[in-house]
Amino acid sequence: MRGLWLQDRTLELRHNLPEPEPAEGEALVAVLRAGICNTDLELVRGYYPYRGVLGHEFVGKVERGPTELVGRRVVGEINAVCGHCQDCLAGRRSHCANRTVLGIVGRDGAFADRLVLPAENLHPVPEAVSTDAATFTEPLAAALEIQQQIAVGPSDRVLVVGDGKLGLLIAQTLALTGCDLVALGRHPEKLALLEAKSIVAVQDRTSGTAGATASPIAPRSFDIAIECTGSPAGFEVAHRALRPRGTLVLKSTYAGRLDLDVAAVVVDELTLLGSRCGPFAPALELLATGRVEVEPMIHARYPLADGVAAFEHAQRPGVLKVLLEPAAEPA
Amino acid sequence: MRGLWLQDRTLELRHNLPEPEPAEGEALVAVLRAGICNTDLELVRGYYPYRGVLGHEFVGKVERGPTELVGRRVVGEINAVCGHCQDCLAGRRSHCANRTVLGIVGRDGAFADRLVLPAENLHPVPEAVSTDAATFTEPLAAALEIQQQIAVGPSDRVLVVGDGKLGLLIAQTLALTGCDLVALGRHPEKLALLEAKSIVAVQDRTSGTAGATASPIAPRSFDIAIECTGSPAGFEVAHRALRPRGTLVLKSTYAGRLDLDVAAVVVDELTLLGSRCGPFAPALELLATGRVEVEPMIHARYPLADGVAAFEHAQRPGVLKVLLEPAAEPA
Repeated sequence: MRGLWLQDRTLELRHNLPEPEPAEGEALVAVLRAGICNTDLELVRGYYPYRGVLGHEFVGKVERGPTELVGRRVVGEINAVCGHCQDCLAGRRSHCANRTVLGIVGRDGAFADRLVLPAENLHPVPEAVSTDAATFTEPLAAALEIQQQIAVGPSDRVLVVGDGKLGLLIAQTLALTGCDLVALGRHPEKLALLEAKSIVAVQDRTSGTAGATASPIAPRSFDIAIECTGSPAGFEVAHRALRPRGTLVLKSTYAGRLDLDVAAVVVDELTLLGSRCGPFAPALELLATGRVEVEPMIHARYPLADGVAAFEHAQRPGVLKVLLEPAAEPA
Repeated sequence: MRGLWLQDRTLELRHNLPEPEPAEGEALVAVLRAGICNTDLELVRGYYPYRGVLGHEFVGKVERGPTELVGRRVVGEINAVCGHCQDCLAGRRSHCANRTVLGIVGRDGAFADRLVLPAENLHPVPEAVSTDAATFTEPLAAALEIQQQIAVGPSDRVLVVGDGKLGLLIAQTLALTGCDLVALGRHPEKLALLEAKSIVAVQDRTSGTAGATASPIAPRSFDIAIECTGSPAGFEVAHRALRPRGTLVLKSTYAGRLDLDVAAVVVDELTLLGSRCGPFAPALELLATGRVEVEPMIHARYPLADGVAAFEHAQRPGVLKVLLEPAAEPA
């Protein structure tokens, strides 16, 4: 079968990859649609030494597996877990010490004709959710992870820093809590997607060198700040916006390191919280009821055969979601 | 009066400082005993540009103030607050935006014959608590702040990194929770103080260059790790010891910055938590009942007149608490 193969920071379309063979408990899924995520771009840049088929955001159709799933449209949780390590037994299954992660760690991913995942990872897509929209289930679940970790409600003043794909999803999910929300970004056309949903969006026109001190956000005024830019500059803006005992949520994985002012964290008793994968069921529910809108974030779609060009497109400044469509052509 | 004055990283004993004059609501306190803290040493090294009398750990006798306090032995909370800013009104009084901090920010401290503090900051010392022991009320309260911020109980495996003054107090307070506690330090004679209280203490014999990977602590095995060394090496040891979704408490203020691996924090969904001043009442209670033992940590005592020598002593490797005794001699 075909797949977008990453090796030594080079991405290429391979035509003769072996057909994936489901192990016991696994299902074989034909990929209908897949989304390019910032983590994919970071992997190509060498954030983590992964070799294999990229891709972890997908909608597929089950070809082999449990009877109740065969023939159905599904999305899939990306962590394939052992079920018996200390973390699994403690209920932290997405942190399984022996896990493989679809298209990220030790398991070929979704930018291919077919993939395999444990059947327990698959969630049928409700009729009301389009295949395009369902492709956003995984990043939307990641956005919802924040609310699995900390309580966010109407008494909280919350800043979302970054108007990329994840930032836009996070702002939409947090808006549903009734919190006092401000989204900060650099791109008027992206912020407009939030303003259309009555979310307060502020454009940051400062240049990189001006830094956090020139930010349009009042300092020390937010209870919670979510860093979605994946950059030290975004971290500084989020940090500066927080009141004492505030919480700074880190959502972006990236290769760089951060120069942290420890004394400031101690003196202000701040909480820094890393946040990764989240729950699929409520994400599908939000898509089914239309309370989160994702289609306007689709900026381009490519057949799998043009996957390398799709990656080039996804890396252009200002581009949101680029989709790949393996099933749009004969395999 | 006399006082140990810090200016431009130079500490000197001054003899002709003006007598402090209590403002409305403040009390005048004659200092009986005061303790040198790592923060004092950091201030001398230039951690924060403070100019004035140093010192914030003290026991004193009230000379002027509310009738019910005059003549009594007291300890004092170090943050003098405005009571009407956003942080005060939200109950975060130790984070008051307009605060002065005894011997640290805008308020002359305790290494002097007398000091002033708001009367509301003062706590009478119970008869059962010696003046020596009461000098530890402030750092013991800081240790207890951890339990104000996170729940610690018998199901938690907790690592305390660092066997300095604060680490020893923190280990003792956490032991009272019944948690599965390990204290890690470099000094057998300090760890012996914990072993005497049946606390598991492990000596770290690794050299600075070997770093965290040579640590005797099993990686990814602790729910909570408390960093009390004030060094990036200590942070790395604490970080490496934590399981996914674990909590790393930062207790030390120091001038340096930390090179943080953001991706590791995100992927493991760690919590980093800054922790500073804590509650005095339970600290006095623990001293009164003897459940925390502090006297063995006293390594030296000096008259105030020899305060500069006391600082030199406190900076020697392996030295724990050095006390100053302004009242031990005619003022």
